[in-house]
Amino acid sequence: MSSGKHFGKGSSKPALPDDGVPRLYSMRFCPYAQRAHLALLAKQVPHHSVYINLTEKPEWLVDVSPLLKVPALQLVAEKGEPSLIESLIIVEYLDEKYPQCPLLPKDPLQRAQDKILVERFSAATAAFYKTLVSDGDINDFWKVADIFESELAKRGTPYFGGSKPGFVDYMIWPWFERLAVLKFAVKERYSFDVKRFAKLNAWIELLLQDKVVKSFFVKPEDHVEFFSTRQAGNANYDLLA
Amino acid sequence: MSSGKHFGKGSSKPALPDDGVPRLYSMRFCPYAQRAHLALLAKQVPHHSVYINLTEKPEWLVDVSPLLKVPALQLVAEKGEPSLIESLIIVEYLDEKYPQCPLLPKDPLQRAQDKILVERFSAATAAFYKTLVSDGDINDFWKVADIFESELAKRGTPYFGGSKPGFVDYMIWPWFERLAVLKFAVKERYSFDVKRFAKLNAWIELLLQDKVVKSFFVKPEDHVEFFSTRQAGNANYDLLA
Repeated sequence: MSSGKHFGKGSSKPALPDDGVPRLYSMRFCPYAQRAHLALLAKQVPHHSVYINLTEKPEWLVDVSPLLKVPALQLVAEKGEPSLIESLIIVEYLDEKYPQCPLLPKDPLQRAQDKILVERFSAATAAFYKTLVSDGDINDFWKVADIFESELAKRGTPYFGGSKPGFVDYMIWPWFERLAVLKFAVKERYSFDVKRFAKLNAWIELLLQDKVVKSFFVKPEDHVEFFSTRQAGNANYDLLA
Repeated sequence: MSSGKHFGKGSSKPALPDDGVPRLYSMRFCPYAQRAHLALLAKQVPHHSVYINLTEKPEWLVDVSPLLKVPALQLVAEKGEPSLIESLIIVEYLDEKYPQCPLLPKDPLQRAQDKILVERFSAATAAFYKTLVSDGDINDFWKVADIFESELAKRGTPYFGGSKPGFVDYMIWPWFERLAVLKFAVKERYSFDVKRFAKLNAWIELLLQDKVVKSFFVKPEDHVEFFSTRQAGNANYDLLA
């Protein structure tokens, strides 16, 4: 992994070893990019991380991520060094390409059900974002969380993936890691109801101890600090560098 | 397949044979539902189609599609008779469950690239919809079509799937089948530039002759008629029944 320093406009393209391992173009505080990091780390796929200043993007970004998006996974060992985009497509690619530590179940029905669950979480990511930047209602986030609380009860396992974290766990985790940002944004209107979310609360505690989550963890106060600086128009990308 | 008649509020649940084959809850003019039909037909998976009046949904829909969505594929042979939703997830499920006539490539990189392409088409579906119902700019649709024109050139094959239609072809086709609706909506502002879209134009001609597309085809004037009645608030769901 890189030092966590973000490359911006005017920067030189990072000199990476010619080792053929995938390069993940990312932003340290982006929850979608975090999905790709978690999958790479869970599956122990060697990779390089290159962090991008999304406010002032480096001129060379177009060469490695033609749509200027992050996350982008550049496959330098493949012909033409193509880049993959879209966090879920990147993660499914990694799960198919690197069979070790599978994230999605093998059974087609269970795979589809896990994908549907993550798709349903997009209502939560939308509510999260709206609550932060406009007049979104935080209850819309909790309503989606209800679905996940019920699902944990239905599955009867500590993780959505069973006895260990899997696709659903890692794909929704980034927003739970950022609950402090939600709290910071809505102040006294925030309330995480531990009775309503008893199972999710236990799940959060377990994931906070998960070695994959820990290896890419950002502390609540740092998430809040990044959010505050971004809201103020001077995002402190290098907060952790 | 059913007669094409749509079940609405107050209707009795259709009596289907207890044969264990999947049941697709659909709406005859829904482009997303069409994706699931095309996959089922391409892969020759036996199934029942049940069409739903989306304006006045039948009370029993909740039993077969708990989120009241179409398309929903109910797997009556599976424990609990679960329903899958989200057109792309349904199609990927079918492709994994029924290996015959594969739609997605086997290679993880090519699979990811096909999925990214279909994901990029969502900008076209958004532009299509906005152009019909609000003040969308039809050029936003053509701009996405440019990507697909280039991609056909890059792949050097008549179909996105190679020598026959595959995942990308069938997943984007429903909107090309409905170009007449776009033309109807914008009148003289419509122009399909056959020079700009030479390859897409040839691709459209080929798909119009494809037996899968033909077996679920709706004529341009019928698409327009359905759109007009829906805009007028009295959608003629049973136009073809």
